[in-house]
Amino acid sequence: MAVNVSIEDRIAIEQLVTEYAYRLDHQRWEEVADLCTDDAVLFIRGREIVGQEGLADWAARRAERPNRRTQHQMTLLRLDGVSADEVHGTAALVLHIAKTGGGGTYVDLIGEYRDEYVREQGGWKFRRRRLVPLDAY
Amino acid sequence: MAVNVSIEDRIAIEQLVTEYAYRLDHQRWEEVADLCTDDAVLFIRGREIVGQEGLADWAARRAERPNRRTQHQMTLLRLDGVSADEVHGTAALVLHIAKTGGGGTYVDLIGEYRDEYVREQGGWKFRRRRLVPLDAY
Amino acid sequence: MAVNVSIEDRIAIEQLVTEYAYRLDHQRWEEVADLCTDDAVLFIRGREIVGQEGLADWAARRAERPNRRTQHQMTLLRLDGVSADEVHGTAALVLHIAKTGGGGTYVDLIGEYRDEYVREQGGWKFRRRRLVPLDAY
Repeated sequence: MAVNVSIEDRIAIEQLVTEYAYRLDHQRWEEVADLCTDDAVLFIRGREIVGQEGLADWAARRAERPNRRTQHQMTLLRLDGVSADEVHGTAALVLHIAKTGGGGTYVDLIGEYRDEYVREQGGWKFRRRRLVPLDAY
Repeated sequence: MAVNVSIEDRIAIEQLVTEYAYRLDHQRWEEVADLCTDDAVLFIRGREIVGQEGLADWAARRAERPNRRTQHQMTLLRLDGVSADEVHGTAALVLHIAKTGGGGTYVDLIGEYRDEYVREQGGWKFRRRRLVPLDAY
Repeated sequence: MAVNVSIEDRIAIEQLVTEYAYRLDHQRWEEVADLCTDDAVLFIRGREIVGQEGLADWAARRAERPNRRTQHQMTLLRLDGVSADEVHGTAALVLHIAKTGGGGTYVDLIGEYRDEYVREQGGWKFRRRRLVPLDAY
């Protein structure tokens, strides 16, 4: 029984997905945790990031590599309503990375995030994100 | 005389365009026909696919190549209302393909779909899709 | 004090950003000026384009290179309301170019536009666009 997702909620979730990418690409890793619930779990490239503590650790590790410049292109947001306050969905990622020591970029990864979004007092947040590479669709 | 496209219709058509890409990329080719009218015609890379029968044939041929992994990135949806139940539009495509026998992807095609969308009882569907490559804009 | 951006305004600005890319990619450079205020300033790849006169000059120069085929992929629209009639925002760009003398494309530039949008009688327009490359985020 799919629940309809209102336009307001759709756009709020689209903004959430955009904001996640924006913060990564602008090296504001420590602010990604604000987009996630306290019990969030992210499965990203073989790593499992658990809760606010896990997100803080992950952000600290990321900050050690400031030269890695990324552009997370997000498209194809596809949502399924579960309840008034829970939506599941997928969002396609093309991850571009700037080459070091010169110009140009390359595509590092293509895949999709399989997400669970929940509404909390402050708005929509990620409760789960699992990044699945294209060859594992 | 352009007809205004409501936000509800815009988002429904955006979801239709997303769903088409999603089903291709998840190898659910036989479900693409559900997104098309009975008299739909698709012009894709030199091939003309006509109606539900044509779509069934096309899906069967596609299913013979399950190793071809694709990501259809859709952006730049641009709509022109024709009537309350008909919208024409374009949607830009960047088609990524996973390289076989190893990692990585490459861009196989860039172009735009030139579409006709019509509202039927079950919602918005494709009546026409013509994929035009970038060098033929 | 951020001002809420209504869904109607968000979608209108999204269409503005799409239309800018569409006109560039369809070589309708002289129509880009219609998307900009009379006092608009665009900072694009080391060039400063000022006002309607500057836009006309820029369009004329662009028209001298009709063989340069582009696809401006726009994603990650992120908006901050400033007032009822002014919104600031960013929009990520991946610029694809068709190779000359054969097939294929390459990514020429990745970056983001940092924009100021204002509402005029005819709708939303660009007052400022600054294209910032990925390595200068």
